[in-house]
Amino acid sequence: MTTGPPQHHIHAAVRAALEEDLAVGDVTTAALFPEPVRGTGTIFARQDMVVAGIAVARMVFEQLDDSLRLVQAVEDGDEVGDGTAVLTVEGDARSILMGERVALNFLQHLSGIATLTARLRQAVRAYGTAILDTRKTVPGLRALQKWAVRLGGGLNHRCSLGDGILIKDNHLALLKAQGVSIADACRRARERGPHRHRIIVEVQSLQEVHDALRGGADVILLDNVDPGTVRQAVEAVKGRAIIEVSGGITLANAAEMAAAGAQALSIGALTHSAPAANLSLDLTAFKSPSRQRRRLR
Amino acid sequence: MTTGPPQHHIHAAVRAALEEDLAVGDVTTAALFPEPVRGTGTIFARQDMVVAGIAVARMVFEQLDDSLRLVQAVEDGDEVGDGTAVLTVEGDARSILMGERVALNFLQHLSGIATLTARLRQAVRAYGTAILDTRKTVPGLRALQKWAVRLGGGLNHRCSLGDGILIKDNHLALLKAQGVSIADACRRARERGPHRHRIIVEVQSLQEVHDALRGGADVILLDNVDPGTVRQAVEAVKGRAIIEVSGGITLANAAEMAAAGAQALSIGALTHSAPAANLSLDLTAFKSPSRQRRRLR
Amino acid sequence: MTTGPPQHHIHAAVRAALEEDLAVGDVTTAALFPEPVRGTGTIFARQDMVVAGIAVARMVFEQLDDSLRLVQAVEDGDEVGDGTAVLTVEGDARSILMGERVALNFLQHLSGIATLTARLRQAVRAYGTAILDTRKTVPGLRALQKWAVRLGGGLNHRCSLGDGILIKDNHLALLKAQGVSIADACRRARERGPHRHRIIVEVQSLQEVHDALRGGADVILLDNVDPGTVRQAVEAVKGRAIIEVSGGITLANAAEMAAAGAQALSIGALTHSAPAANLSLDLTAFKSPSRQRRRLR
Amino acid sequence: MTTGPPQHHIHAAVRAALEEDLAVGDVTTAALFPEPVRGTGTIFARQDMVVAGIAVARMVFEQLDDSLRLVQAVEDGDEVGDGTAVLTVEGDARSILMGERVALNFLQHLSGIATLTARLRQAVRAYGTAILDTRKTVPGLRALQKWAVRLGGGLNHRCSLGDGILIKDNHLALLKAQGVSIADACRRARERGPHRHRIIVEVQSLQEVHDALRGGADVILLDNVDPGTVRQAVEAVKGRAIIEVSGGITLANAAEMAAAGAQALSIGALTHSAPAANLSLDLTAFKSPSRQRRRLR
Amino acid sequence: MTTGPPQHHIHAAVRAALEEDLAVGDVTTAALFPEPVRGTGTIFARQDMVVAGIAVARMVFEQLDDSLRLVQAVEDGDEVGDGTAVLTVEGDARSILMGERVALNFLQHLSGIATLTARLRQAVRAYGTAILDTRKTVPGLRALQKWAVRLGGGLNHRCSLGDGILIKDNHLALLKAQGVSIADACRRARERGPHRHRIIVEVQSLQEVHDALRGGADVILLDNVDPGTVRQAVEAVKGRAIIEVSGGITLANAAEMAAAGAQALSIGALTHSAPAANLSLDLTAFKSPSRQRRRLR
Amino acid sequence: MTTGPPQHHIHAAVRAALEEDLAVGDVTTAALFPEPVRGTGTIFARQDMVVAGIAVARMVFEQLDDSLRLVQAVEDGDEVGDGTAVLTVEGDARSILMGERVALNFLQHLSGIATLTARLRQAVRAYGTAILDTRKTVPGLRALQKWAVRLGGGLNHRCSLGDGILIKDNHLALLKAQGVSIADACRRARERGPHRHRIIVEVQSLQEVHDALRGGADVILLDNVDPGTVRQAVEAVKGRAIIEVSGGITLANAAEMAAAGAQALSIGALTHSAPAANLSLDLTAFKSPSRQRRRLR
Repeated sequence: MTTGPPQHHIHAAVRAALEEDLAVGDVTTAALFPEPVRGTGTIFARQDMVVAGIAVARMVFEQLDDSLRLVQAVEDGDEVGDGTAVLTVEGDARSILMGERVALNFLQHLSGIATLTARLRQAVRAYGTAILDTRKTVPGLRALQKWAVRLGGGLNHRCSLGDGILIKDNHLALLKAQGVSIADACRRARERGPHRHRIIVEVQSLQEVHDALRGGADVILLDNVDPGTVRQAVEAVKGRAIIEVSGGITLANAAEMAAAGAQALSIGALTHSAPAANLSLDLTAFKSPSRQRRRLR
Repeated sequence: MTTGPPQHHIHAAVRAALEEDLAVGDVTTAALFPEPVRGTGTIFARQDMVVAGIAVARMVFEQLDDSLRLVQAVEDGDEVGDGTAVLTVEGDARSILMGERVALNFLQHLSGIATLTARLRQAVRAYGTAILDTRKTVPGLRALQKWAVRLGGGLNHRCSLGDGILIKDNHLALLKAQGVSIADACRRARERGPHRHRIIVEVQSLQEVHDALRGGADVILLDNVDPGTVRQAVEAVKGRAIIEVSGGITLANAAEMAAAGAQALSIGALTHSAPAANLSLDLTAFKSPSRQRRRLR
Repeated sequence: MTTGPPQHHIHAAVRAALEEDLAVGDVTTAALFPEPVRGTGTIFARQDMVVAGIAVARMVFEQLDDSLRLVQAVEDGDEVGDGTAVLTVEGDARSILMGERVALNFLQHLSGIATLTARLRQAVRAYGTAILDTRKTVPGLRALQKWAVRLGGGLNHRCSLGDGILIKDNHLALLKAQGVSIADACRRARERGPHRHRIIVEVQSLQEVHDALRGGADVILLDNVDPGTVRQAVEAVKGRAIIEVSGGITLANAAEMAAAGAQALSIGALTHSAPAANLSLDLTAFKSPSRQRRRLR
Repeated sequence: MTTGPPQHHIHAAVRAALEEDLAVGDVTTAALFPEPVRGTGTIFARQDMVVAGIAVARMVFEQLDDSLRLVQAVEDGDEVGDGTAVLTVEGDARSILMGERVALNFLQHLSGIATLTARLRQAVRAYGTAILDTRKTVPGLRALQKWAVRLGGGLNHRCSLGDGILIKDNHLALLKAQGVSIADACRRARERGPHRHRIIVEVQSLQEVHDALRGGADVILLDNVDPGTVRQAVEAVKGRAIIEVSGGITLANAAEMAAAGAQALSIGALTHSAPAANLSLDLTAFKSPSRQRRRLR
Repeated sequence: MTTGPPQHHIHAAVRAALEEDLAVGDVTTAALFPEPVRGTGTIFARQDMVVAGIAVARMVFEQLDDSLRLVQAVEDGDEVGDGTAVLTVEGDARSILMGERVALNFLQHLSGIATLTARLRQAVRAYGTAILDTRKTVPGLRALQKWAVRLGGGLNHRCSLGDGILIKDNHLALLKAQGVSIADACRRARERGPHRHRIIVEVQSLQEVHDALRGGADVILLDNVDPGTVRQAVEAVKGRAIIEVSGGITLANAAEMAAAGAQALSIGALTHSAPAANLSLDLTAFKSPSRQRRRLR
Repeated sequence: MTTGPPQHHIHAAVRAALEEDLAVGDVTTAALFPEPVRGTGTIFARQDMVVAGIAVARMVFEQLDDSLRLVQAVEDGDEVGDGTAVLTVEGDARSILMGERVALNFLQHLSGIATLTARLRQAVRAYGTAILDTRKTVPGLRALQKWAVRLGGGLNHRCSLGDGILIKDNHLALLKAQGVSIADACRRARERGPHRHRIIVEVQSLQEVHDALRGGADVILLDNVDPGTVRQAVEAVKGRAIIEVSGGITLANAAEMAAAGAQALSIGALTHSAPAANLSLDLTAFKSPSRQRRRLR
């Protein structure tokens, strides 16, 4: 089980989302239900998925109304089938109605990411290839999105420009204009960069792979290449560096890249284009007040 | 041209995104470029799209380094072809490298939404049907996402639970348990709800359409119905209410729903599942310092 | 019972108010009481009033010192007489002294609004006329002020420029310069505005009432008119639109406007000029420790 | 001329107010004016008043749209007559419409406070008595309200519990139960309190005045007393302490209290019950486009 | 026992510190411990010290993981010897590892201040001289630092420019250029400044002491003077004002200044240069689960 | 020249510091100077130092009053002698007085860190040893403190728990209880940790150095060892890993550790105990307006 972002981080994300939706209350619910009304809401998965975000959904209801009773049927990271009950909320149905959409918005977004990650991971499992995310995230949600990737079995690439050295095409273009080769760029990063990071360098051809190796790169990131080039790079590198591949990786071609020898696939779509997972909340009133009363005794 | 969210709103979103990516600086760029280096970065569309978010991307670079010079080639909301230059940034290339990803993250997300909206709108143009978003948004980004929908030619449905009356299935389930019909629910909302809103009610069958009409509903939202039901509803309503349709609307079936008489289609996927649009930033150093000098004279 | 703003909203307002008053502590209390001292503080109404803000006052004391025991004698929205105990706080008297002013500041402001609203409502009760607030609120307190209006029996008009269509005099002045009539303005708003809102238009003469009706206005807001004009407007409209009246409505003339047929009165003074209600906190030390002990058993 | 709160403080207050009103835009203006339209808005005083808050109103428009041109006709703190133009805003009329209410809300609230303060000051001018505010402020607006008091010619009492020593009735009630007299309370505060503050103590009778004097109080605050008691206190004190009076001071009785010898009157109503001043914004389109064009050449 | 800053203030400081350290989690702990592991962490003093900040350290662990069990062995403000256990944390050792550094950073900083304050106070105890801090604080930490000073037995000087009158050298330099003497400056401050503050004036010579006395200064602050000057000032003042001394006060010379008659020493180094106190956290796993079970019974 | 934290980060730190000091204004300056008064303030170094924080000090004055004119005599990171003018501020002297302390508080704290770093670096220069900071920072100021370290010629160690792998004593203690050796810990971190980081492991004996090497550690951090042990470790490692030393490093022993072969020294005192550098602001009024005019020509 992977740990999520710190509590206060989730708390702030939930508060911002509630502020968006409820800053001036829920006029429909207020008009229809002047008095409290007890109900039970159940959030169901409406497709097969890896669930992500239950901890966030819980906090939505807790922040809205701390008298609601929450019962969690599955854990974040669990694979569940269509129709599975994920979370049950019991109490004043008006509060459940007010939190429904915000809770589902978190769940559908994060579960969508976890599910896509899990599918990609499944596709390359035979090769032991790692599935990595990127910094191509939705602004403001990076920590939650990267947690969803972990829940889906993926690993996180850089979380910010400050936590890893990755020499990219645009760095190299500038350096080339200064007469600095890829090998020199790697050496410069090693010498002046933080000693706690490895050197990752993005290359686009076999020639550049050799240049990177000469510079002592720890990880060589092949961007937008075909499986053949990956295979040649693996042979050239001979284990002296890790081979990572990015650019246009999909469920359709991931296995082929893995088979070609890629040790890691980094995929922007995990966080920028994963379709939302399908979940919904069903709300029911307590039909028999007598039964309800008994239960509370 | 649609107006966007207030300046301070965009400002806060940009600051949060920069904080995610740059709270402790850019260790790669710092290691490779100890001194300023002049460069020009150009953001290109890498597919046909409706561009959305240039105003946000500009603010990313302005907040990072107010000495950068920005030249905008197209406007938010413009339809552009693959290869179009969208925004040019000139100045210390280190600042451009530091803002590149955050700027692109906003642009790819918002342009993805605007582009999907425009395609759906194109699909139903012959029928004059409106394309509406929903509250199924990515938490924290609602105002920006809804702006992107407008840029794509769509209209906004409720922006929060406080700015419209929409009686949904879960409201009706609770009311039914209290013996309150759909018609009574509409009347109750009219009587107790804010006088500035119309009454929108979600129904799932022709029978419920009639019930809603009896209650004086202004807009009848048919959820998860087939085109045949839409057609029957239109006939039943006879212009006394607006017919809105939601649930599973895609590029494939939108035209059919419109042809059946739907006056508005509300589509969650616009904001929860639009794939990111493809854009990239190309960075070049000034090759000839002499030419550069001339230009500045 | 009306529901208030979401918890986190009240929480933030309380934190801001405590920050104003207590950022560097309470030097008087600290100097006088180096050790804890048990006491009981009781907040009393010092006039007849509709109480509003007890939930906020509670949170003031809870945020300051969670060991305080709070006993609430009445509910938000209750009408109480001069001398009624509203809230009792028991525990370290130093914490009670530190929270006293902030708690009272919320209570006196919100109860002032609720009380004025209730008096106006009482004045027009015979006519079934609604009392509405406006956007003329004290900056930063809109959600709390509008809640106080509801507690006083009033209804809320727009909470923001985004949650309703109200075509005002300044809009019409601009449109007139473009050759657009009131009727055309209403039609334009209907066509291009959000489909969830009714069209409210502000007019100043009988002639403009007819123009608004031609444009299909749902609500006609008569601004700064005399009761005679209201009566004529009601006759002209014949139930085809709601008649709302604003401008200079006071306790003295509200009934006359209602008698003339106004279905709603919108009154800025509710939120910008309601005098503070009179409440105070009386603090007593435990005189007899033996009695105290008995009580806790 | 008194200086206002620091820029960043006003900035934050304005941002919060704009967020309340404009978080999701202005649907009316957007529907009526799809294109920019040039206009001039002028804010007029609609009664005699001391203007306060122009600096805040300016920032409202600046934050909304930095292309607006602002021309300020009077200064904060100026006394102006009914009909005086206070601030002119020129540019895209849509931005003026969006900022109108927020700007007026600040101006009417702060000018209301400054005007009431100035009237009270005028009432006691002959006696040289100071008009002081209290901590009975509207939560969240204390710094702005206290600035308005200064603009009206008043002085500020404590801005927080941390910036002065004021021993109040509830402190004394607790101390009495511990057998500590008013004189001892003053001595204790002197000994243990910050050395930068004077000792102010609230008393309710002549007997207590003598007790306070014995304790070395610097300022004696007579709460809820009649002019006769003030006169007796002044005689008793013989200049050894400052006499401040509070409780139920109004325009009607302030002069009498001053005449009785009160050197300072502290008045909660300045900040909790000052009626809003009357101001409005008139918006006009440029009537003659030809003249406008000429001007821009 | 002195009271600390309000809860919400500590809460915000802790949240900011956790955000600095844990925004993207703890990659080491996550890699080493995929599953929860029970452990006990004990924070030990590693030198003699006055402990300050336990309340803050507790909140660090509470915010991180509310299932941790905290046992506090000593109180804030206690003097403890090298090797004393200060706080014990029991639960998932991963949470303890994640909070360790942030908790220690608060403790070492605040205990360093409290300890230096206590040593200075000890040095002057025989003379009854007060040890005061200044506004020379570390930006953002003023309230916590001033609390640490109180815990060490010191008193607080101004907490902000708004809570006391202190006429400093730069004020006097400007006034001198306007022909205003020190005595006149004191009178002006008395007349126009808040009536709740005493007048403190900074002087640098005996001549200026006399000038300050003539102006009615309540406190005379001698800046950067030798003990001889202090002695002469004390004789000149004859009890008519308090003598405060600042500038270069250290453990080495504090007693001499006190012996010369200084009633208060204000010392910037308390908050800007106190060396961190030495504390560390020792973490141990539960070796025998059977023993653990017994302990919990 | 090293780049500092992003603009918005400095902006937020400055705003927080101004809020601490100026939330309710400067009562002394307001009382003494009712009208603007032109002056020039110059910040001088009062000791030899590496200056750090000029960019922050500038923003203090810019946020307070954007009409102040700032002239910067030296750059952040410059070594300057006692008496050097660092920054000149010209304009309304009241604004200069209000910003003086906040500006100096940033400068003295950051310059203290930069200066201590530079001295340590000077001490080990002959050996090419790097000086590193730690996460033992003052809460809330980490980014600024780490920038000051860079300005002093040091390098940054981890900025958060998320941006590097460092296996510390407490990790190892827990793992040992699970039967996991240091070598296994390194392997586990390599396998499960982010691929962009090297493995740093803290050891305390030569035996543990060998264990770490077996596990493939990239950096071996010797904590609290004597120079002899460092020398032995260097010989044992034979260049297969970097040797970093921490624990009790001071100006007195740094050179000895460097001479023993330490390639990096990480030192908590840089950020938790660097004494503030001595700087002050001298304020002068314009004596002769004619001279002033000449100067501006």
